[in-house]
Amino acid sequence: MKNITEVCRRIEETQNELVETYRQFLEIASVSADSKYAQDCKSAAKWLVDKLGGMGFYIETHEKDGHPPIIVGKYLKAGDAPTVMIYGHYDVQPVDPPDLWETPPFSPDIRDGHVYARGASDDKGQFLTHIFAAAAWLEETGSLPVNLIFLSEGEEEIGSEWLTEFVQAQPELLPCDVIVISDGNQFAPSVPAITYALRGVMCFEVNLTGPNRDLHSGSFGGAVTNAGNVLAELVASLVGPDGRIQVPGFYDDVEPMTDRERQLLSELPLTEERFFGDLGTDGGRGEEGYTALERRWARPSCDVNGLTCGYQGEGAKTVLPDCASAKFSFRLVPNQQPDKIAAGVRELFEPQVPSGIEMKLEVDHGSPGILVSLESPFVECSARAIEAAFGTAPVYAREGGSIPIVATMAQQLRADVLLLGWGQADNNIHSPNERFSLEDFRRGTLASARLLDEIGKMKK
Amino acid sequence: MKNITEVCRRIEETQNELVETYRQFLEIASVSADSKYAQDCKSAAKWLVDKLGGMGFYIETHEKDGHPPIIVGKYLKAGDAPTVMIYGHYDVQPVDPPDLWETPPFSPDIRDGHVYARGASDDKGQFLTHIFAAAAWLEETGSLPVNLIFLSEGEEEIGSEWLTEFVQAQPELLPCDVIVISDGNQFAPSVPAITYALRGVMCFEVNLTGPNRDLHSGSFGGAVTNAGNVLAELVASLVGPDGRIQVPGFYDDVEPMTDRERQLLSELPLTEERFFGDLGTDGGRGEEGYTALERRWARPSCDVNGLTCGYQGEGAKTVLPDCASAKFSFRLVPNQQPDKIAAGVRELFEPQVPSGIEMKLEVDHGSPGILVSLESPFVECSARAIEAAFGTAPVYAREGGSIPIVATMAQQLRADVLLLGWGQADNNIHSPNERFSLEDFRRGTLASARLLDEIGKMKK
Repeated sequence: MKNITEVCRRIEETQNELVETYRQFLEIASVSADSKYAQDCKSAAKWLVDKLGGMGFYIETHEKDGHPPIIVGKYLKAGDAPTVMIYGHYDVQPVDPPDLWETPPFSPDIRDGHVYARGASDDKGQFLTHIFAAAAWLEETGSLPVNLIFLSEGEEEIGSEWLTEFVQAQPELLPCDVIVISDGNQFAPSVPAITYALRGVMCFEVNLTGPNRDLHSGSFGGAVTNAGNVLAELVASLVGPDGRIQVPGFYDDVEPMTDRERQLLSELPLTEERFFGDLGTDGGRGEEGYTALERRWARPSCDVNGLTCGYQGEGAKTVLPDCASAKFSFRLVPNQQPDKIAAGVRELFEPQVPSGIEMKLEVDHGSPGILVSLESPFVECSARAIEAAFGTAPVYAREGGSIPIVATMAQQLRADVLLLGWGQADNNIHSPNERFSLEDFRRGTLASARLLDEIGKMKK
Repeated sequence: MKNITEVCRRIEETQNELVETYRQFLEIASVSADSKYAQDCKSAAKWLVDKLGGMGFYIETHEKDGHPPIIVGKYLKAGDAPTVMIYGHYDVQPVDPPDLWETPPFSPDIRDGHVYARGASDDKGQFLTHIFAAAAWLEETGSLPVNLIFLSEGEEEIGSEWLTEFVQAQPELLPCDVIVISDGNQFAPSVPAITYALRGVMCFEVNLTGPNRDLHSGSFGGAVTNAGNVLAELVASLVGPDGRIQVPGFYDDVEPMTDRERQLLSELPLTEERFFGDLGTDGGRGEEGYTALERRWARPSCDVNGLTCGYQGEGAKTVLPDCASAKFSFRLVPNQQPDKIAAGVRELFEPQVPSGIEMKLEVDHGSPGILVSLESPFVECSARAIEAAFGTAPVYAREGGSIPIVATMAQQLRADVLLLGWGQADNNIHSPNERFSLEDFRRGTLASARLLDEIGKMKK
């Protein structure tokens, strides 16, 4: 019986064909942000339908008026093996500014060992590695070692509205044990990573209203409550001098990092000096007792995102402003409860609002954090697959940001999530001259093939 | 020998002629803000030169390129009597929006007992009361009971640049014991006021710079210092929970109000309920232990004037902003030292600036506060003159705002300042349909004539 060795050999031997197919996919200008490319988005979906259908996948197309379709490809013939769902998106970012592209964004060009095109890395190239891995399995062995679902949408770059609705409404259509996503980066060149956690996010806007008009600060200052001063007090009260967030109950559900996690993070090839140097600063402030990396990835945070009040032009204007507002957000770690935090912010602020001021607090619950245990067998499978394909063991990373659609899927489908980014930080995603390394394309495909093999071996 | 009784009778008997002259002055469109009225400003200056020259005043015209002239009229024949300088401005506010005027702004119309025209109250009408009072003295008695200087400028509405320079450079050209200014309001209808103090003002702008670009709050939040959070902390630290300003040394030179002052203020016909009701608020916060009126007029204050940071558009953007800035200002009471306060703000802020943030602090020293003792004989003279002319004793008011040119004159000329506003809050100064009551015009002229008499009696 043929095995992973043959599958990998096939991937190596058919590289040129795979790259050629990849280029065809990149030629489709599936920009989701601009309605004049709506037809191209449909073409990209159709391309996937044809590709997966041709591989023997059963295809479901879920359409909603005004949205590019959701494409689901299922191949569920592996009995009691785990079901893997691989998510990717077929839409791409706009190309602006077009003048800065060295070659046209939808005419893929190969140079310096890279494919240059919009979507090369984000996410067409990375998603295709998995499709090509499954194709190699099917072509070489006639079957897959796992039950496999491909899920793709065309709105990831504009908020995943339709997919979010779909996953929330019909999670039973996507039954899976683990979700694999390759839509990000390795930790560094030749340092592949398994990203096992994402922070969640909650956004707040507080609006303070004072007197019924702007007032002269001479005639009224000292007597009338200044919304700007009160705003500063509220915002300043969010974080204590030790960097701890002062919202009541905020840390109740925060799970401490394990010793193993802290050890793994400390071993990552990253110095704080270089990190802050790149940002042009001499250091950063945060929760006491944690390294900058721990604070970014594994601890919750509170950031002012915007402040608006009074006169913002040149020079001075001695106005006592009639209103003031702040936007701020929390990054949450897994297990924190957004409802509790929203109530806590209100509890923190309300007693501080003095006479003369009305407060309105708006809350966007955003998305929760997600965390896959390092002890998960899927993490172990990924580590073995990546080490074999890349020739080096992956590091274990978390991600400080939030991917709402990923959080939604993890929550609704009750599945572990593996973020296996094959990209590099210099791939220029969202910028001109986006690119993806042919070497990462090749190794990613091999890693995917091996991952299916490893997970397939998990069956009893 | 003829006396004040005859002078007042003459003023009463010649009211129609005075109003006619007043209307001529109002026909000159001396808008200083708009250079297309530059010639009109010169015409208004010329009108004053002719008027004062015709009364026997010695005229000095001080010109500087690009500025309307300063007009000084001197009549210094009263021997060792005090020298009174009366300041007024011949420029007026723009008329915008012109459509809202019921009659054209430079075609004075008399209706409802008021003269309607731009400048009717601010300041042509009020300034003329003093010129007409002096004219009545000269016509009726052939002399003035005091040495008298009229000082007028054409840039009051745009910042008094040339007069400020002139007064600072050549204060010896304006030797006087007391400065009288009628460019404001009575306390309320039929409640004339002597305004014996102005607050000063200092303006600050603090600019914080963080990382070299806006950052993603997910990837960086918690590790990198957020300029918006720090800005809120700095601003919040300015004022304590008891409403006291926390700048080191801030209150060192603040003179406490006398018991008499507090008593007089408490007797003013003003309820806090009505004051805050007009502002659409349920009350106001400020320094503990003082009434709202005391806080506005006689205590220093600190107000945020503007806050700028990060994303200010609709919805949420989870950015960690690269910079943040705040404009804030203090209203100062007389005797506070701007240099000391500037140093204090720096002393308060600097230890709070964390790693990752650079602070730039800009200071505009503005103008100091001024205060005339309620025991000043000039205050007593004013009170007697106003009570006789208005039929009611004046109240003693302070002004929370600052008039930089007044502060400059008081400081440079080392003279007491009497702010004797004859206007009313509903005179629509700076708005369409500016007006001045003929009754206030008449009573103001009588009060001015009596004031000269009272001050004249001060000579040994």
